[in-house]
Amino acid sequence: MSKVEEAKPKESVQESLQQVLALLSRQRIVEQLVHKQDMRRHELVESLVHKQNLAELQNKLDHLHPADVAYILEGLPLEDRLTVWHLVKADRDGEILLEVSDAVRETLIADMEPEELVAAAEQLDADELADLVPDLPEDVVEDVFQSLSTEEREQLRAAMSYREDSVGALMDFEMVTIREDVTLEVVLRYLRRLDELPDHTDQLFVVDRREILKGILSLGKILINDPDKLVAEVMVDEDIRFEPGQGAHEAAQAFERYDLVSAPVVDERGKLVGRVTVASVMDYIREESDNEMLNLGGLREEEDIFASVWKSAKNRWTWLAVNLVTAFIASRVIGIFEGSIEKLVALAALMPIVAGIGGNSGNQTITMIVRSMALGQIHRANAKALLQKELAIGLLNGVVWGSIFGIFAMLLYHSVSLGVVMMGAMTLNLLVAALFGVFIPMIMHRLGRDPAVGSSVLITAITDSGGFFIFLGLATIFLL
Amino acid sequence: MSKVEEAKPKESVQESLQQVLALLSRQRIVEQLVHKQDMRRHELVESLVHKQNLAELQNKLDHLHPADVAYILEGLPLEDRLTVWHLVKADRDGEILLEVSDAVRETLIADMEPEELVAAAEQLDADELADLVPDLPEDVVEDVFQSLSTEEREQLRAAMSYREDSVGALMDFEMVTIREDVTLEVVLRYLRRLDELPDHTDQLFVVDRREILKGILSLGKILINDPDKLVAEVMVDEDIRFEPGQGAHEAAQAFERYDLVSAPVVDERGKLVGRVTVASVMDYIREESDNEMLNLGGLREEEDIFASVWKSAKNRWTWLAVNLVTAFIASRVIGIFEGSIEKLVALAALMPIVAGIGGNSGNQTITMIVRSMALGQIHRANAKALLQKELAIGLLNGVVWGSIFGIFAMLLYHSVSLGVVMMGAMTLNLLVAALFGVFIPMIMHRLGRDPAVGSSVLITAITDSGGFFIFLGLATIFLL
Repeated sequence: MSKVEEAKPKESVQESLQQVLALLSRQRIVEQLVHKQDMRRHELVESLVHKQNLAELQNKLDHLHPADVAYILEGLPLEDRLTVWHLVKADRDGEILLEVSDAVRETLIADMEPEELVAAAEQLDADELADLVPDLPEDVVEDVFQSLSTEEREQLRAAMSYREDSVGALMDFEMVTIREDVTLEVVLRYLRRLDELPDHTDQLFVVDRREILKGILSLGKILINDPDKLVAEVMVDEDIRFEPGQGAHEAAQAFERYDLVSAPVVDERGKLVGRVTVASVMDYIREESDNEMLNLGGLREEEDIFASVWKSAKNRWTWLAVNLVTAFIASRVIGIFEGSIEKLVALAALMPIVAGIGGNSGNQTITMIVRSMALGQIHRANAKALLQKELAIGLLNGVVWGSIFGIFAMLLYHSVSLGVVMMGAMTLNLLVAALFGVFIPMIMHRLGRDPAVGSSVLITAITDSGGFFIFLGLATIFLL
Repeated sequence: MSKVEEAKPKESVQESLQQVLALLSRQRIVEQLVHKQDMRRHELVESLVHKQNLAELQNKLDHLHPADVAYILEGLPLEDRLTVWHLVKADRDGEILLEVSDAVRETLIADMEPEELVAAAEQLDADELADLVPDLPEDVVEDVFQSLSTEEREQLRAAMSYREDSVGALMDFEMVTIREDVTLEVVLRYLRRLDELPDHTDQLFVVDRREILKGILSLGKILINDPDKLVAEVMVDEDIRFEPGQGAHEAAQAFERYDLVSAPVVDERGKLVGRVTVASVMDYIREESDNEMLNLGGLREEEDIFASVWKSAKNRWTWLAVNLVTAFIASRVIGIFEGSIEKLVALAALMPIVAGIGGNSGNQTITMIVRSMALGQIHRANAKALLQKELAIGLLNGVVWGSIFGIFAMLLYHSVSLGVVMMGAMTLNLLVAALFGVFIPMIMHRLGRDPAVGSSVLITAITDSGGFFIFLGLATIFLL
């Protein structure tokens, strides 16, 4: 499905969204006017203005790139979104459904008839369909499946069989293949018979009779070399090839590192089964970093900003519930020391400082470790050095910032020993933060879990409860 | 500077790093043995093993892609890093310096002689040089500047004049241009005279005599169309063009949205001044999301994992200091209510719950708003609806989770009124969290600041101090 020829906006997509919003609100004002005043009298005017408005909107939408229509749909409240969605030409439905976020796609699909969905799906390639199918009603999927050729069915089955974060899920099937024993002249003649090259074709794949990948031939090489040369002379033996079961993360790193535009995917026998392009890699990278960000912020998944209150609340409950449990534990730790607080109420005012700084410092350590782990830079050989470094930083920060707050506590509550306890507790809690800041992501990794998810909540829980326990414990021993 | 022909590893880069680490540790064991035992006797053996080891290491490095060498350098402690760096062939220094992170680049440059630096810099293109120059000593920069041609100097000056987050900073100058009044046959003959096409050349730029951009001609079109056709017949009038002063973020979004491989950059009169490729856009996206992540984690910038304790500590102090101020304020808020806590010590144990849940919920709202703002999806027209939605979620969560904790407080401390105060305080604090969670990023945006930086710290400060104030205040009024 080529997007090369589609109209692309000279204005920015933000401006387009503004214009659509303006048209929609003009529409609403007309409707309200009619409702408030005498219906009959305005009917004619209304229907005219109405039609003109919608025509203008439709014209605008027809000239936008599918990705921009998707962007606008995401930026509209549900009612407006569906108004716009109905104005989109049916033959663009498929592409646009692919571009919108999962949450928004759900709202659009819920509004479509089965026949519309089948028609939309039929516009897509097998690898694109694989992304859409999980969101479609079962009977629609069956109809779509019936409409495919045997080859496409095979491709769809293959594409759907791979894990979401595997190379197979990023792969498409639009590769151009050639044989190595022909001249470039023959390749040129072959290409001239095509209507167009698939998007992101920067290289052709050289395969033998059994479709075993022999090498790659970049378009640049075809253009630069003498047409009488053989493909075998000019092609390079490409070392970068992926297998469908490989992790998408790994492939994305290779694309970034070696500045690739496309790369072949082969099965275990070296047979070419598909290709990965930089476009799907970029989408993957964006999604990956979005998810990390959302997880850090305590959201389970991407949220439609105009989702219902109920749906949004559910998206946030997982992390809130975890947080409630940890808050409960911290509260019970304080509960143990209620007697001490009763005797020295200053403890209640100072304890959140010890806990807060510990959490902050622990999160700094975790952020650094998680990032280095994602890059694969942490090994047994350097883990010890890292832990030592983090502990040293914790000690340094504990002494520096602990002294500041120790002096502050001393002056405020006229007690030298309270100041010393404050400093000792802050130092200890920062060491705890450093220790667990290194260990938590490593242990999660060892257990085969993603260290980016939940590490931050865990470290905060530990530095909160730990900070309260250390500070109140020290105070109980030395001050009371 | 083409990287196409360089050797790329069949093994993964993580495996290469492991091997380098193994070679280095073998090296260290030999050295230690020699030191411990009789020097004389082992000298010969040592120097042999030593040489063999280094030769093996050097051979390994020579076969790695510059990006992989950079990766390995980043993963090594300082001493090992410099050992490896000395083994790298001098003619690859420039490329590798470009690939390493800023923090690691500093350590490498600090270890190089001025002449080595000049030699390394001379291997680079003007746009690459522009990235390196800020890190080089002044006298080196001067020498490098002398060695450039007039055109390159002009390009370097231009590249360095753009803001870090502008299209100009992403731009390179390796575009192939053609005229519109020639046939494709002429274009083909012209291309065949080149040694190779610049990396990421998916299209040629069609310009007139004054270098005004007239359109673009993709390599695919050249290959598919009849060589007798004129460029003017086949080229397309490309709507996507950037200006050097434009924000890099905007260009990156366009690359993602329209799946571009390269795009022209023109000045205000439409003159072609450079191009942006997907490789530099990917680097930019990675850097952007890394920075966001680091800021959320409370780190000022990317850290060399083997940086000195002192350097790392400084990188973390900005946010720790901010956090200390907010912790101090929260502590003073509690200080106001010390009398109440003395009378009812349960308040001390319950207050962190109210503050914690508020912070968590506020961060969820902020994450969502910041993300939508980065996508440009928030406008005056929908801001009110968003605020209402967030307040509704806050109310819902307050009632649900507030009740749970109200009942918990009631049972634990045998006081119905304490339970009611708990629930009321949680609900109010969640409403505060929703309100400021929407307002803080919007106000920061209005003030021209990046809402991703610091929003999280601010909301936590407000929900902490606010939570303590609301809970202790309500308790003082209704319970004492």
